[in-house]
Amino acid sequence: MNVEIITIGDELLIGQVVDTNSAWLGQQLESEGFHVIWKTAVGDVESDMLTAIDAAMHRADVVLITGGIGPTKDDITKKTLCKYFDSGMHFSEEVLATINELFSRNGRVLNELTRNQAMVPDKCTVIQNHAGTAPCTWFERDGRVLVSMPGVPYEMKWLVSNEILPRLKKQFRQDVYILHHTTWVTDYSESLLAIHLTDFENELPDGAKLAYLPQPGLIRLRLTVHAKSEAAATDIMNEQQAKLRKLINGHILTEEDKIPEVVVGELLKEKGCTMGTAESCTGGRIVSQITSVAGSSAYYAGSVVAYSNDVKANVLGVNAADIERYGAVSKEVVEQMAQGAIRQLDCDYAIATSGIAGPDGGTPDKPVGTVWIAVASRNKVLSECNRFGMIRESNIQRSSNHALLMLLGLIKED
Amino acid sequence: MNVEIITIGDELLIGQVVDTNSAWLGQQLESEGFHVIWKTAVGDVESDMLTAIDAAMHRADVVLITGGIGPTKDDITKKTLCKYFDSGMHFSEEVLATINELFSRNGRVLNELTRNQAMVPDKCTVIQNHAGTAPCTWFERDGRVLVSMPGVPYEMKWLVSNEILPRLKKQFRQDVYILHHTTWVTDYSESLLAIHLTDFENELPDGAKLAYLPQPGLIRLRLTVHAKSEAAATDIMNEQQAKLRKLINGHILTEEDKIPEVVVGELLKEKGCTMGTAESCTGGRIVSQITSVAGSSAYYAGSVVAYSNDVKANVLGVNAADIERYGAVSKEVVEQMAQGAIRQLDCDYAIATSGIAGPDGGTPDKPVGTVWIAVASRNKVLSECNRFGMIRESNIQRSSNHALLMLLGLIKED
Repeated sequence: MNVEIITIGDELLIGQVVDTNSAWLGQQLESEGFHVIWKTAVGDVESDMLTAIDAAMHRADVVLITGGIGPTKDDITKKTLCKYFDSGMHFSEEVLATINELFSRNGRVLNELTRNQAMVPDKCTVIQNHAGTAPCTWFERDGRVLVSMPGVPYEMKWLVSNEILPRLKKQFRQDVYILHHTTWVTDYSESLLAIHLTDFENELPDGAKLAYLPQPGLIRLRLTVHAKSEAAATDIMNEQQAKLRKLINGHILTEEDKIPEVVVGELLKEKGCTMGTAESCTGGRIVSQITSVAGSSAYYAGSVVAYSNDVKANVLGVNAADIERYGAVSKEVVEQMAQGAIRQLDCDYAIATSGIAGPDGGTPDKPVGTVWIAVASRNKVLSECNRFGMIRESNIQRSSNHALLMLLGLIKED
Repeated sequence: MNVEIITIGDELLIGQVVDTNSAWLGQQLESEGFHVIWKTAVGDVESDMLTAIDAAMHRADVVLITGGIGPTKDDITKKTLCKYFDSGMHFSEEVLATINELFSRNGRVLNELTRNQAMVPDKCTVIQNHAGTAPCTWFERDGRVLVSMPGVPYEMKWLVSNEILPRLKKQFRQDVYILHHTTWVTDYSESLLAIHLTDFENELPDGAKLAYLPQPGLIRLRLTVHAKSEAAATDIMNEQQAKLRKLINGHILTEEDKIPEVVVGELLKEKGCTMGTAESCTGGRIVSQITSVAGSSAYYAGSVVAYSNDVKANVLGVNAADIERYGAVSKEVVEQMAQGAIRQLDCDYAIATSGIAGPDGGTPDKPVGTVWIAVASRNKVLSECNRFGMIRESNIQRSSNHALLMLLGLIKED
């Protein structure tokens, strides 16, 4: 089944808000075998919305719309859908009851604008939203479904998980099975890997496709298979994945679609160990990657983000004379940072970074992109000096990825 | 001038990658007076790409495409553009020279696939990419421009800032001036604010528009003005903004389009003061918000992310008996965390959080959503207990925003 996503709101077009909703939706839908074929973002403009909706209703089996259903005047999705489906509106006491319940829970008093959220189109099924005031509406025409949802991420997520996906699965029997399999590859450039896999790619059967998603220091290789049944898709996938595995043996970080911080976390949980970080140039990027994983408190003790030399010395116990002698960006300091993290945070493993992310701060000896990374266990410390590039964001991300890979190596050795 | 953005890649549709490129592009274009009217994301599928390109070339003056121009087989944008513009390809020695330069800088050896990146369409202007191997291509038809760029964020950003925007500004004289003005409003729900501003909205002149962008605990209110000249737009904006200011006096966090962490940073720089954080339930969210601001090292000393009680006691100096007696989620502990951060990180101000973000961990006394937040200066500490909701992500974001607002209040008082 083909799905199209339409996101509505000027804030998405002018870049005031990054659209994370549609990526999340894509993941949920694909994991249930729905195929997202197209995404459109338009502003709060009736004519553009009508054009986008009509095009989508001719291309896809299911059209999911987010945004534009708040109580304020700039939100015109509900009105526009009534126009498209030639529908009137009526007041729903049921929706009002849900809103009242939500308000009384938070101790808030209902006002006229919010009360109007209970006005719903006649020609739709109303799906109650227990996470906010805007009800979700489900329209059908010619066997196609259009669902209008709030743009507030946690409201949309609640509705999709609890209401929309279960209903879609019931209504649409899958006629094409889609499988994705991801392999994280290390120590390869994108083009060298592609040359290495030329024959493999040329020999892929119909319905199978290979995609390269490079990021600093890592390549996420995605194999996709479309087939008529789950069994057929699984057979093709297993065969091709086995072939691929042989070809890139020794360069595989993991064969699951897991970001490095998840792989590290699972290994630590398995071993019953904990970790912490002591970050300078990555400025908290590694911590925030690690704590973004649900359940990370099981293996994550804490972090010290040490921008200033005083914090490096006072909190992490780095020798102040060594900072003076070797500079903050040095083997001596980064190793002491990692060991200090182990001691201060009382954890089994630690990562430390100290470098010059840029754009300023470079010297002839230590140009922008120079990053020292250390990983330590309770009785071992390893460090490496990297020369990354000139671009700050790339340097931070590359340092974070590289540090997590170094830590993985150390944990596996132990 | 109207601009349309097309992003290409299956990874965007299946949600393997969040599209941050188009938000960044939207910001850059709008700030130069180009109006982004539409965004489309399609997969690496020739027919879909051709449909999207053709629709865009009939709607917009400028079409910007990102993605699908890497060296690997799944990238088909260049070939598809040749088909659309009915163009052949030739080998460009100039592009090869740029690639060679890039490779020699990184000590890498050129291979056949990368060499093929120097094949360029006949019917375009080639714009050299000094940040990667894929050249940027600029097509024109019937006075409209289409530019194809890499999807790798730092390559795309380098090209847009240094090449594309300057060329677009030269080619297109602006006939409509667009101004945005953002006001951050506190202590209002979206619907109550909208009721309060009903008359203001109804009386807005033609070409002016008000939008509400709510987030946990804050509303970003955006006034947009379209006019024939810069002077006319400025006049309308000044008049309306003055009217608005009177109406919501006392609820304005800032009148610039600045997120709270930027406002805090500017105030600290102005005062020559520093800050740090001691986070438990926000798990590094506040640190990473603060260090995401360029130049934050001027006022940001460091952070301790203290998930475990041991780290709270050993690193931040919280009294272990108090943790035992009152629990980690308590006034006593959160205040000691803030004071410990001031002492350990030797900073002028600190934020501390300790709460139950959920979904698990609640008790009848301290249900999910209970969050203690403290802010401290060297001689003062303030704390508050908040009862947020049941949703983890919303609780973390609400806590972070609320903590930054509390800190702002404390700094302004001092």
